[in-house]
Amino acid sequence: MQLRLVTALVLSFAVIVQAAPPPDDQPLRRSALLGFDTTSTATERALEARFDATLNPGDLRAWLKRLSARPHHLGSAYGKENADFIAAQFRAWGFDTQIEEFSVLFPTPKTRVLELTGPEKFTARLSEPALSEDATSNQAAEQLPTYNAYSVDGDVTAPLVYVNYGVPSDYEELAQRGIDVKDKIVIARYGGSWRGIKPKVAAEHGAVGCLIYSDPRNDGYYQGDVYPKGAWRNDMGAQRGSVADMPLYPGDPLTPGVGATAGAKRLDLKNAPTLTKIPVLPISYGDAQPLLRALAGPLAPESWRGVLPLTYHLGPGPATVHLKLEFNWDRVPARDVIAKLRGAERPDEWVIRGNHHDAWVNGADDPLSGQVAMMAEARGIGELAKTGWKPKRTIVYCAWDGEEPGLIGSTEWVETHADLLSKNAVLYINSDTNERGFLNIGGSHTIEKFINEVARDVTDPEKKISVWERARAQQIVFGNAEARREARDRADLRIDALGSGSDFTPFLQHIGVATLNIGYGGEGQTGGVYHSIYDSFDHYTRFGDPDFAYGIALAQTGGHAVLRFANADVLPYAFTNFADSVGQYVREVGKLADNMREESMEKNRRINDNTFNAVSDPTETYVVPKADGPVPYLNFAPLQNALANLQKSAERYDAKVPSRAATPQMQQALDEALKQTERAMLRDEGLPRRPWFKHQIYAPGFYTGYGVKTLPAVREAIEQRNWPEAEQQIKLVAETITRIAVAIDHATAQVR
Amino acid sequence: MQLRLVTALVLSFAVIVQAAPPPDDQPLRRSALLGFDTTSTATERALEARFDATLNPGDLRAWLKRLSARPHHLGSAYGKENADFIAAQFRAWGFDTQIEEFSVLFPTPKTRVLELTGPEKFTARLSEPALSEDATSNQAAEQLPTYNAYSVDGDVTAPLVYVNYGVPSDYEELAQRGIDVKDKIVIARYGGSWRGIKPKVAAEHGAVGCLIYSDPRNDGYYQGDVYPKGAWRNDMGAQRGSVADMPLYPGDPLTPGVGATAGAKRLDLKNAPTLTKIPVLPISYGDAQPLLRALAGPLAPESWRGVLPLTYHLGPGPATVHLKLEFNWDRVPARDVIAKLRGAERPDEWVIRGNHHDAWVNGADDPLSGQVAMMAEARGIGELAKTGWKPKRTIVYCAWDGEEPGLIGSTEWVETHADLLSKNAVLYINSDTNERGFLNIGGSHTIEKFINEVARDVTDPEKKISVWERARAQQIVFGNAEARREARDRADLRIDALGSGSDFTPFLQHIGVATLNIGYGGEGQTGGVYHSIYDSFDHYTRFGDPDFAYGIALAQTGGHAVLRFANADVLPYAFTNFADSVGQYVREVGKLADNMREESMEKNRRINDNTFNAVSDPTETYVVPKADGPVPYLNFAPLQNALANLQKSAERYDAKVPSRAATPQMQQALDEALKQTERAMLRDEGLPRRPWFKHQIYAPGFYTGYGVKTLPAVREAIEQRNWPEAEQQIKLVAETITRIAVAIDHATAQVR
Repeated sequence: MQLRLVTALVLSFAVIVQAAPPPDDQPLRRSALLGFDTTSTATERALEARFDATLNPGDLRAWLKRLSARPHHLGSAYGKENADFIAAQFRAWGFDTQIEEFSVLFPTPKTRVLELTGPEKFTARLSEPALSEDATSNQAAEQLPTYNAYSVDGDVTAPLVYVNYGVPSDYEELAQRGIDVKDKIVIARYGGSWRGIKPKVAAEHGAVGCLIYSDPRNDGYYQGDVYPKGAWRNDMGAQRGSVADMPLYPGDPLTPGVGATAGAKRLDLKNAPTLTKIPVLPISYGDAQPLLRALAGPLAPESWRGVLPLTYHLGPGPATVHLKLEFNWDRVPARDVIAKLRGAERPDEWVIRGNHHDAWVNGADDPLSGQVAMMAEARGIGELAKTGWKPKRTIVYCAWDGEEPGLIGSTEWVETHADLLSKNAVLYINSDTNERGFLNIGGSHTIEKFINEVARDVTDPEKKISVWERARAQQIVFGNAEARREARDRADLRIDALGSGSDFTPFLQHIGVATLNIGYGGEGQTGGVYHSIYDSFDHYTRFGDPDFAYGIALAQTGGHAVLRFANADVLPYAFTNFADSVGQYVREVGKLADNMREESMEKNRRINDNTFNAVSDPTETYVVPKADGPVPYLNFAPLQNALANLQKSAERYDAKVPSRAATPQMQQALDEALKQTERAMLRDEGLPRRPWFKHQIYAPGFYTGYGVKTLPAVREAIEQRNWPEAEQQIKLVAETITRIAVAIDHATAQVR
Repeated sequence: MQLRLVTALVLSFAVIVQAAPPPDDQPLRRSALLGFDTTSTATERALEARFDATLNPGDLRAWLKRLSARPHHLGSAYGKENADFIAAQFRAWGFDTQIEEFSVLFPTPKTRVLELTGPEKFTARLSEPALSEDATSNQAAEQLPTYNAYSVDGDVTAPLVYVNYGVPSDYEELAQRGIDVKDKIVIARYGGSWRGIKPKVAAEHGAVGCLIYSDPRNDGYYQGDVYPKGAWRNDMGAQRGSVADMPLYPGDPLTPGVGATAGAKRLDLKNAPTLTKIPVLPISYGDAQPLLRALAGPLAPESWRGVLPLTYHLGPGPATVHLKLEFNWDRVPARDVIAKLRGAERPDEWVIRGNHHDAWVNGADDPLSGQVAMMAEARGIGELAKTGWKPKRTIVYCAWDGEEPGLIGSTEWVETHADLLSKNAVLYINSDTNERGFLNIGGSHTIEKFINEVARDVTDPEKKISVWERARAQQIVFGNAEARREARDRADLRIDALGSGSDFTPFLQHIGVATLNIGYGGEGQTGGVYHSIYDSFDHYTRFGDPDFAYGIALAQTGGHAVLRFANADVLPYAFTNFADSVGQYVREVGKLADNMREESMEKNRRINDNTFNAVSDPTETYVVPKADGPVPYLNFAPLQNALANLQKSAERYDAKVPSRAATPQMQQALDEALKQTERAMLRDEGLPRRPWFKHQIYAPGFYTGYGVKTLPAVREAIEQRNWPEAEQQIKLVAETITRIAVAIDHATAQVR
């Protein structure tokens, strides 16, 4: 359900650095792959070539057409049909396949009313019309209406306030203009944060209701011609989506931390902490326009304004809005398809690959574009297995249900099998949407070097250069000076740290499995139908990846990664890249505190010098902000010392690893030691106030949702000006990093 | 006619520097004023207090109402009435007043046709409707229609191309997308450059016609509620304005360099080089919308898009446009009102103060808001004179005609009296529009210290702090880190260098008179009626400066400056601030060349490495740019050495000047020497290819129009990659700076 925003192609020459010539990636291809020796490398490459020969874009097209033929959300009839279909395919390809069911809370709308009651009357349409150009858009009987899942029921009437993206800093801007949202209904635009943050922050500020609309600036005609003429969101398109407080915990709201099996202990609905505190509803810009037009009050700050043909005011009122929402608070079955191919040598080391199968509606792009690529991988690997080849490690393919409402299928499966997975899982590779364009990689930096090797060996279907080379060119052209320098000078492309937004979260952040999230995009134009009825086969084959060439590229990327990880002599982890990224995060949190100190000093100086008052316009309300408390100098030394140790440990392992462990037993012992390096990144207590999130390096931000916070316990304590907690968490994170270094040293000791 | 764009009030804490506490400006008030000793300072301050007591906002309101009652453009009946009225006032206040007439080319529309001929039909309305809320908006018989003066006649039909702001870099973006404008009609939006640049650059690229429209993003509902509900431009408002190639020379297009007197030698119309090469017409966003909506072709780059409710495409076509323009190519009288108050001691030293009186239509803000403040000054000074006080130097008040079409009244007067002015003028102070807000100062840095002193003594009517303090706070809050540091640490606020856009240009850039341009703004909202029929008394008294408090502030600022300059014992020039700014410009041109070198190397590297091709989308046209030629290292040493000398000369003068010259004769000799420091900034040959512009420190940019280029001969040679010229001009500008230093040394030698 992750939305990748399209970056406009701005060819900017603004900031330039001089850099060395690009590293030649050819020697890497000739030498041994990470985790292999030269002999096993040759075998692996030959196997991958055979795998590639199995891939056929016609398969992807046929599966996409089949799976997107009807709406298939969690708990739907066609969702069940799809799970059964996928399971049958996996079985036919030789996988040991089951459908695992969970029973999970999934509210669907019973009543949705949104009216402008004054100064004029207007009743919002709240529906996306069928289009003759889109064959599946007329399946109204099976479509979920536009709504935000896990909004509470509510019936409120109140003046409206426009809150921009509805993130905390937006409320500071409002306060400077003398506006509060207590007992008001807020209208926020999509963007700037994960949607669930908007009602959460609104409720923290006392609002009684929340509307979220798609402004055409972010998601509509400003981005391109609208559907069906072009790819982008039309004036009646609305973005469904979950608003459960997933930064607290994902999965079924009633079963935090445990699998939602039939007999699981469940919270009462009224005690479920991840439901919203206020009713919330997503609307189209067609429905938002009369509401926004009826606002008076101060002009919105320039960066808040969208491109509707009106002047953006903040309110409150005179627009008064009536919002009434009632839901069916049902439990429905979530059906995960789990397909295993047992490893011949190390069956208890699991390489797991997943992509969800549920959608908000027909979901051709989200999630089926990734699902069909994953199916192609599984079919290819099944074909190889039918010829007698067996993977060294066990391969597990997973088609998740219930990702859209809240990563439910993956989370409940991980929670149910936490002990086994913690023991066995060596890798989780996720995908979700996939379109024409550039390879995007997020993940654990312990496998950054590994996935760079994989990317160097996949050919971009449009450019006939490696997808690695193309991603590198993208960084050079669109990145800032630092990104450009790195892209040219660093041996490997730096992968993104993972926040949340897809099924990798439970693997990475709850049980500490090395994780990758992969996909192509940036050229295909599917953002404008995200979570709408128009995310259809017709749309995808016009605007997503018409010939499925990038579906094949994703199957190659995922398939090679799975095969290499499953077949490697030793697990292809490497640690200097990881230490390099952790070093970056340590510098960032230090800089964050320094910047906050300087900003607070500057702000307080302006307050004391009367500078704010001197520039304010007396014809407008201006409330001077409250002075900040001082930002103390924090003791970062524990983190810095732990980092220094980590760097040394990482260098020792990476320098030694080419010699490899000699015997299969020694290799397996090394594998076991390597697995523990990942587990060492967790703390059982989890993050402050959200124990479900145990990873100490990566987490979704408590106030960003999808957006990652690295070293989250430290970073968020600083951001929230909680200095005692910052000092405490610096020590705890330093301990964690030290444990990681010790685990690496233990692995190094296994290498002969 | 200068348009100050409103800066949105974004309270940004992004970039912070630590800085020393603010300098205390009180000591300056207690000590002697620049150019005065302590005794004469006391006298001067007492005089200024008496002057302030003469100022009355009721006068300003009455004059504004009277002068804006009917349209009063160059050559109009009411323009003549206004000139006569202003002259009568000056006479009544005791000034020796004349109306000087020139005969100047001023085309007015005979035919204006703009049609979309395909794919649909649409005929542009090309007129601004009368509004019942605006009493003078219905004077259609006297209003100039919406047009751009000095467009050539033309009758063209061609496909349309959207060119963003229509500046040179925009055509590079088009070329990258495979689009050229040869034989096309371009549509550009207002903003990003002076309007006259748009048809000039379009014609250079082969376009056959040019439309300029006001996008609501820059100038319409995006900025605020539109007139008459709010202050901003409505969908039928259009911006008139001159498109003569004023960066070549301003004034009457037929009499470059000489006064347009009755018997002046004139160019044939067909040889006038400042007329456009192609027909050009300004239109409203209401008229632009059907044209833009009918464009196909590539999506416009994100930074090019406005906020009309449509998707911005580039074309060419399928929109095809018919543009037909015919003008009455008449000569009309331009009437300058020139009012003198003879100096008692040094009558041949002239302190000149000007503001234009002509408007595009009723012109309440532009230019009358400045004009009525200037009239209040003149009346106050006249009152002082009636009590027996006489200025030491001659004071000249000027109400210019024909500024809007091209600084005509001021330019022709300066050209006519160039020898006398070159001998006598010691200062020119200009104003134009004026609204609520912050003091803006542009001008010669030799009088930066002087005008800072003046600004410290004027009280802001809203905040009851000095206008200097408020301008300083504005820099602290809205400036970048460097501006903030300077505002806190530098003794004086740095004033802006002057490009063009109002009547200061001939004084400063043609004959080398120390110049200031002053005005208040930033809170008043008049930008949305700029050059429209709605720039009216009704609008101004709602949105500009309703109680004329800032009119009084401008009268105080201008009046004190005039009185101090006229009464000073010695001319209050100072040179270290000037040397400081020249030093900044020298560093900038060096950095410009360095940046261009790095940008060219980066660009060429991307071309050679195939990086651009690697990221382009094969479904869209992408033309790899041509490689840049190398940027050589230039010898900036002559400039740097000349600057070092200038700095020393400046320090010597400023250190010595407090002792003053002793006798009146010696004071006068020093004045004469100081005057020559300004004249030394000129070169007779002028700038390359535009000899009218003789100033070597400040000029309007050849491709920016209003925007200043400092050290223009060097800067523009570099920008245009003309390396031999850059090397040559570095030497010539260095010679000029050396001459300035010698002139300063000569002045220093006069000081005892």
